[in-house]
Order: sequence, then structure tokens, then C-alpha cells
Amino acid sequence: MTATALCDTPREAARLAADAMDWLAERSPRERGELLLAVAGALDGAAAELIALADEETALGEARLTGEMARTTGQLRLFANVLAEGSYLEATLDAADPDATPPRPDLRRMLEPLGPVAVFAASNFPFAFSVAGGDTASALAAGCPVVLKAHSGHPKLSERTTAVVSAALEHGGAPAGTFSCLAGRGAGRELVRDPDIRAVGFTGSLAGGRALFDLAAAREDPIPFFGELGSINPVLITRRAVRERGTAIAEGLVGSFTLGVGQFCTKPGIVLVPDDTGFEQLVVDALAGATGGRMLTDRIAGGFHGGVGELLATGSARLLDGSGGHVDTATRHADPVLLAADAADLIRDPEPLLRENFGPACALVRYRDGDELAAAVDVLPGSLTTTVHAEQADVTALTGVVALKARSGRLVWNGWPTGVAVTWSQHHGGPWPATTAPLHTSVGATAIRRWLRPVCYQDYPAELLPPALRDDNPLGLPRRVNSLRTTTQSTRDG
Amino acid sequence: MTATALCDTPREAARLAADAMDWLAERSPRERGELLLAVAGALDGAAAELIALADEETALGEARLTGEMARTTGQLRLFANVLAEGSYLEATLDAADPDATPPRPDLRRMLEPLGPVAVFAASNFPFAFSVAGGDTASALAAGCPVVLKAHSGHPKLSERTTAVVSAALEHGGAPAGTFSCLAGRGAGRELVRDPDIRAVGFTGSLAGGRALFDLAAAREDPIPFFGELGSINPVLITRRAVRERGTAIAEGLVGSFTLGVGQFCTKPGIVLVPDDTGFEQLVVDALAGATGGRMLTDRIAGGFHGGVGELLATGSARLLDGSGGHVDTATRHADPVLLAADAADLIRDPEPLLRENFGPACALVRYRDGDELAAAVDVLPGSLTTTVHAEQADVTALTGVVALKARSGRLVWNGWPTGVAVTWSQHHGGPWPATTAPLHTSVGATAIRRWLRPVCYQDYPAELLPPALRDDNPLGLPRRVNSLRTTTQSTRDG
Repeated sequence: MTATALCDTPREAARLAADAMDWLAERSPRERGELLLAVAGALDGAAAELIALADEETALGEARLTGEMARTTGQLRLFANVLAEGSYLEATLDAADPDATPPRPDLRRMLEPLGPVAVFAASNFPFAFSVAGGDTASALAAGCPVVLKAHSGHPKLSERTTAVVSAALEHGGAPAGTFSCLAGRGAGRELVRDPDIRAVGFTGSLAGGRALFDLAAAREDPIPFFGELGSINPVLITRRAVRERGTAIAEGLVGSFTLGVGQFCTKPGIVLVPDDTGFEQLVVDALAGATGGRMLTDRIAGGFHGGVGELLATGSARLLDGSGGHVDTATRHADPVLLAADAADLIRDPEPLLRENFGPACALVRYRDGDELAAAVDVLPGSLTTTVHAEQADVTALTGVVALKARSGRLVWNGWPTGVAVTWSQHHGGPWPATTAPLHTSVGATAIRRWLRPVCYQDYPAELLPPALRDDNPLGLPRRVNSLRTTTQSTRDG
Repeated sequence: MTATALCDTPREAARLAADAMDWLAERSPRERGELLLAVAGALDGAAAELIALADEETALGEARLTGEMARTTGQLRLFANVLAEGSYLEATLDAADPDATPPRPDLRRMLEPLGPVAVFAASNFPFAFSVAGGDTASALAAGCPVVLKAHSGHPKLSERTTAVVSAALEHGGAPAGTFSCLAGRGAGRELVRDPDIRAVGFTGSLAGGRALFDLAAAREDPIPFFGELGSINPVLITRRAVRERGTAIAEGLVGSFTLGVGQFCTKPGIVLVPDDTGFEQLVVDALAGATGGRMLTDRIAGGFHGGVGELLATGSARLLDGSGGHVDTATRHADPVLLAADAADLIRDPEPLLRENFGPACALVRYRDGDELAAAVDVLPGSLTTTVHAEQADVTALTGVVALKARSGRLVWNGWPTGVAVTWSQHHGGPWPATTAPLHTSVGATAIRRWLRPVCYQDYPAELLPPALRDDNPLGLPRRVNSLRTTTQSTRDG
């Protein structure tokens, strides 16, 4: 990588990030929003070059990468809106009450940036979860300098994107350590242990994420580790739904589990399907049109081949159609793999079927009745998403499947989990092993929360209070004052 | 302990808590608020008996315990208000946008209870941080059943309080596992490892908290651990402040560090004082009136005696006045200990002076000038609080001491950190080693956040949506709809 915004060592990068902390934290939310808009604009300007580079390194295709670039710049612009709106600061003021027992001081609380953040880029979204992706955008929005550990799957793109981001930040007056980029697994481990790093964002594999989570927890001063790891993303299909729209569901499923060669965190990996409905054959038919594609890296291709092979070797699933996970080592080309299993087997020995196979594999697990479906749901692990395909007449029977909610970050009705809209209400998270931090999301407006911590000011002089907490509310923030939400813009709801 | 709400084993208690989960989670926020009010009312009714028992076991005195009981019931009532107000749910709705690229589904997000919670009671607040304390109140408010690990310092009180809480919950229709209580260190460790426990709240020592944090992080499925551990709570005093009100500050300091025999998480443990001002003598004079008192447990008394002895043995501090940490083993009586040290020594070898001595000990650390003060601040660890005593004319010079904010949960101006008001704006937390979770607080309205996780519903049918997210807003919640905050009650600010 070039010298621009690149540091020789993790220690150096973290130290520079710590040096940049005061400058970045002291910008007003709107000023930081301007920085994010400048980064978005710079990415737009370099889009053609970056998309070509990304396609060269990831083979994800121009159409998909163009969409992902739009999502990435849209994400930066959403956080600029979040900053301009200001309620993310949770500014809260309680006046002194000298008559209370005991007398109550003047207390004012807001969220402040946590400190320099290490971000681990993912392989499968070279824009949206990489150098200028959601973790970087939300951390910079919060006021936290970022040291990014680039993914080895797209090194040239990482270097160029870093140059574009760094130039935009520098042009906006940000000091050098505001954003920097490192490569190498050893560098990543060192970052997680670095005394100046105050939190970690990670998107990647269960094994890799767990190893880094353990490092963060084992520090003399443990730091928060926000890791998105593995997710099986179950789909439940009712008998009525197959009857009413079996072919459409089968086609939608194939589209979802083969999208991006199955390399999505939200790829549906296991589908609970009613027996004796012929649904499996509908999926086999739909799969006839699917062609597979080139996987992101040798490591991912090898993992996919090995994982499918191991599952078949356990006897928990059988091959219904497809390549059996074969990957052409020269081209990294993988064809879709469709597996079949029985809910009774899943219930008896869940582990093999619930291991994520990152790639275009999906297991159709046949259930007999509602009891067996409920028993199967009971063995499901935490997932980013759970999808239900059902008809209106199924709704009453499904009210009881509350267990779904306890295991999922997002519940999808008659749709598909791939595709994650970046909005105020999005949640991309979930219980272990989907993430290491079930209280938080890595996508959507509230992703900024991960990099903020509360600070309370007691009887503080106006001159030393942050503007967000001053009596005259110079930033025009929505705040909570003496228990009541106050607002500078409000509408009335329902 | 009696059989009421007591379980034989942690496994049994956690299983019952999991069984109670659906009932508790499905109550409306207002219904759970009613339960909390019922618990508060029951505690009021039993107050005389409970306070007498608490005094017998802790020797904290009737006046202090009466105040603490009021704080405890006030805390339950604050959470009932938080539930009635409803914005803690963060209900957020984004309408579908079929014209977006890609088309955007209908997305609705809210916070839902995390699952059964293990709470570790503290020794030093037998009401406010024990059986019916803030962790229990906030977890029940969130909709999470609680398994409490009682503190061995007040076993009879724990048993009676458990009976009072359980009876009130039972009367309100709550199933048995909603709240239960266990005793013993082994039981505590088992709880942290139990598969049904989804989060832990802890208030106690650095060593004990670290051991349990490590257990939680080492689980096959790591769970959030919200621990409040140790805090040195530094105080900075300017030369002008000593000149203007040295005697009053000295008296306030003695009051704060000897309150409750120094057994407060927020006890000021280290005070940076200007040299050549005679401030040490003012504190010695103020201390003449202090009498010490009986410590909470043999273990705490032994720890205090040992800790002060170790510090003196390092030579980092010298005894200015007091007992030298001597504790009468028969009565557990401890006198206040005043220590003196030099900032140069603190800067050279911070560790001995920065170890928390839980009990009535305080070290006055002399600094020569602003540079030495800044260098001393730079070695301070994370604390629950930092206190500044200064005059208006000092404000400009202190603007530069931003390092304070990075190390503190609460910043106190010309006051004392002991005494933690339970309000919307309170923050009782801070960077390691003050807590294991710098994003969260264990006191104040937002303490409920620790027990909630987001769930997002995509294109969900109205019948299956939680009431908080339905179009007609039947709970009358303040929500965010299509990016804008909406409100059913609002005032205008600033």
C-alpha cells in the first residue's frame, strides 16, 4: 500500500488515531456530517475506477458493485442526517432540586465518542462492509478515529479506497490519524490489543471473530468487541404457502441463496419445508437456471468445499441437486448446492446442519406437522434473520412461534433476508453466534451507538459544558429536559 | 433461606426464569410498571422490619438505611415512569418504498427483553444495589426475569427482602421464576455459565468482577456482563479554590471519604492538591471530628487493612493522620486513614496509589504546577467520577484538561461524588476498571438499556406485530416514523 494514510505498524496507527481524537471529537455533529458528505462525494467521483478494481478482485460483477457503491455512499449520507438531527446524542438535562431529600444537583448527560476504533473489513462487501463501509462511517460519525484492518481479498481496492477517503478527510481539515489502513492478520491482532484502541468492529467468520473477541476480552483492560460472525438465517414455509405460491417461493429462495455466490451474511442456509408437498422438486426445478460463480478468495472457496463435504459425511443431509460443493481450484467457480434433511434428524443432532456454509448451499429440512416445526425451531441458534413464508390463514397458528423472536435480529415476512436496507429502523444483529453483542447493530442509524458512551456533568459551569448540554441549546438538539422529551421539530403520530 | 422464591440450584432457578420469560415479556410496559409499583409499595410496608434487619447485619445506621430504602423504592417508581413514557422502546417505523433502488420493504424496529438475567448483589448498599436494587428493578422493567445472587454480608435481609418482592410479584400474577434468589459463590459462578442466563449485572470488587466477566466471556455463547468494579474517583483542587474556601473543601472531603465508613463505589480515593497551601493541615483538622465505624464484613475489613498496609510498604505514600488502616478484628471498627504523596511519585509509579482501597482511606497528592497536574491526570485510570474544585477564574485554564472526560463517567464541579441521584440524566459507569461495559450505566433511567436488544420486523402482518409497532400506536408511544420523531406529548426547548 502507498504511504498515504498508511502506517508502518499498528502501534503507530493507533497512536496517531489517539492524537486525532480531540480534533474529531470537538467538531460539532454537523461539522462531522460535512466530513462524511465529503467522503461520499469523493467516492462518487472515483466510483468508476473503484468499481472496476473491485470487480477485478472480487468478481462480484459491475451491476452488484454499482449498487453496493450507492449503498455505501447512501450510508455515509444517512449518518450525516443522523448527526444533523442530533437526537443520537441523547442530551438529557435535569435541573437541580435543592428541596429534594437528599438535595439534587444539576445533572446533564450526553453520549461522547469512545475513542479510537479498530475496524476489520469483510471480504464479501468490498464497499459496504470494507474501507468506507458502515463501521467506518458510524465510527467517524460518532467522533472516533478509525484504524482499518483491510481484507486480504481486495488489497488494491482497499489501498485506492483508503487514498480517496484520506484525501477527502484531509481536505476537510482532519488530522492524519483520523483514518488509516493496515494489512495482515498479525497487524489485526496487534490492533485489538493496542492500549489506544477503545473498541473493535468486525465482520467475518465465526472462528476469526471468536479469536479476536477472546483477545479483546483477555486484555488487562477489556474493550467492547462488536463482531458480526456467522448466521444460518432459517426460513420457515407453511403448507398453505407452498400450496398457494410454491413455485414463486422456490424461485425466490434460489435467487436469495445463490445471490453473490451465496456469500452473504444473511444467506438463507436452512429452510423448514412441509413434507409431501413436492416443494423440494420445485426448488430443484428453479435451480436449473442457476449457474454459480467465482468465489471471493481461495480460503473461502476451500472452506465452502470442505464444509459441504463434512456435512454430507455426517449423514445428516443428503445431496438433492448441485455440485456437492465442488469448487474449481483454478477459477474458484462454485455451483449451487441443494441439500435435503429431515426435521427429526435436525432435532436429534442439530449441530452439523446448523453450521454456516458460507457459499451457495442451502438445506431443505422436511417437517411433518406443527409440533415437529416447533421442535425444530427450538434447536435453532441465534441468527441475523428469520424468514417466514405463510398465508393470512396461518397467522393464528404462528402466534405461538414466539421462540423465533428470541433467536433473531430481523424477522422477515414473505420476503427474503438478503438485501439489508440502510434506514433508521434497520437492525443487523442478533444473539450469538450471529454477533458478539446482541444489544447492537452494524447497519442502520443506530449503528452509531456502538462508539458512544455516556458522560454526566454535575453542577458544571456553562463555559465547560459541551454545547449539546448548554441552557440555550445552541445546536438546536432534541433533548430530554426535566423528564420530558423536548423537540425542535415534531409531528404527531397515530 | 426459606422456600419462597428460593430454588435448590442455579440450574433450577434459571430454568424457572426462562419459563417466566414469555409472561413477563408479554405484559405491556404499563403493566410491568404496575408490578414495579407493587414491589415499591410492599417494600414501604415492610420498611421498618427491613431497615432494622439491615442495620443489624451492616451497621450502616438507621438514618442512612432509611434514606437508602427511599432511594430504592424511588428507583422502582422511576422505572415505572420510564415504562409509562415508553420512549425507552425506541419504536421506529419506516414505510415501504417500492420506488427505491433496490425497493425498500416496510421495516419496524423496537427493543425487546434480552432474556433471564443474573444479578449479583453488592455488600455496601443492602437495599439500593441488592435484592430489590437498581439491577433488579431495571431488568424486571425491561421484561427480563431475575435470578439474584445474594451478598453474604446481609443474608437475613436478603431472605426477607426476597420474600417481600416475591409476594408482591406473585400477587400481581407473575409466575414463580420471575424473581428468585440464591446464595453462595459457587452458585454465582454456575449462574454466569447457565445456558438460560442471557446477561449478568454485577456490583462488587475488581477481582471478583473480573473473574465472573472472564467466565461470561469464555462461554461457548458469550453473554453481556455489566459489571461495576473498582473506582479511585479522583478529585482535583486548584490553588485558587484552596485560597477561597480551603476549610470548607477539607470538611467536605472528609465527609465524603468517610461516609458509610468509606464503603462507597464513588468514594474519593485520591486528591490532587496544590503544594504550599497548607491544605493537608486543613484536612487533618477536619478529620479530628471523624470517628470511623464498623465495616460491612470481615473480608472487607481485612482487605482494607491489608491494602493500606501494602500501599504504605511501597513507600509511594506516607501516613498523614489516622489509624494506618488498623481494623479491630472483634468489632470490625476502622478509623479514617489520611495519606500523603507527591505527584512526581504518582507519575513515576502510578500503580500503588491508584489501587482502590475500599474503606475510609484517602490520599492527598501534592502537585507543583499546571504541568505536573496535567501529567498526573494523564496516568489516572477510568473512574465512575472525577471531581474538580475550582473558582470561576480557573475555568479557562481547565478547558485544556479534556483528558478528564475520557477517564470518567460523571464529572462533578465543586461538589462530592458520593450520593448518586436516580434521575433520567444520571450516569453511573465509566471506562475500565470502573466498569466492564463503558457504554452503559447501572443507575438512572437508561440503566434499562442493558437488558434490551433490538428486533426488526420486515413486512410483518399487523396481527403478529407487537402493539408498540402497530400503525394505530395503541400504546400511545413516542416513536420515530419515516425518520422523524413523533410524540404524543411534547414541549418546546430553548
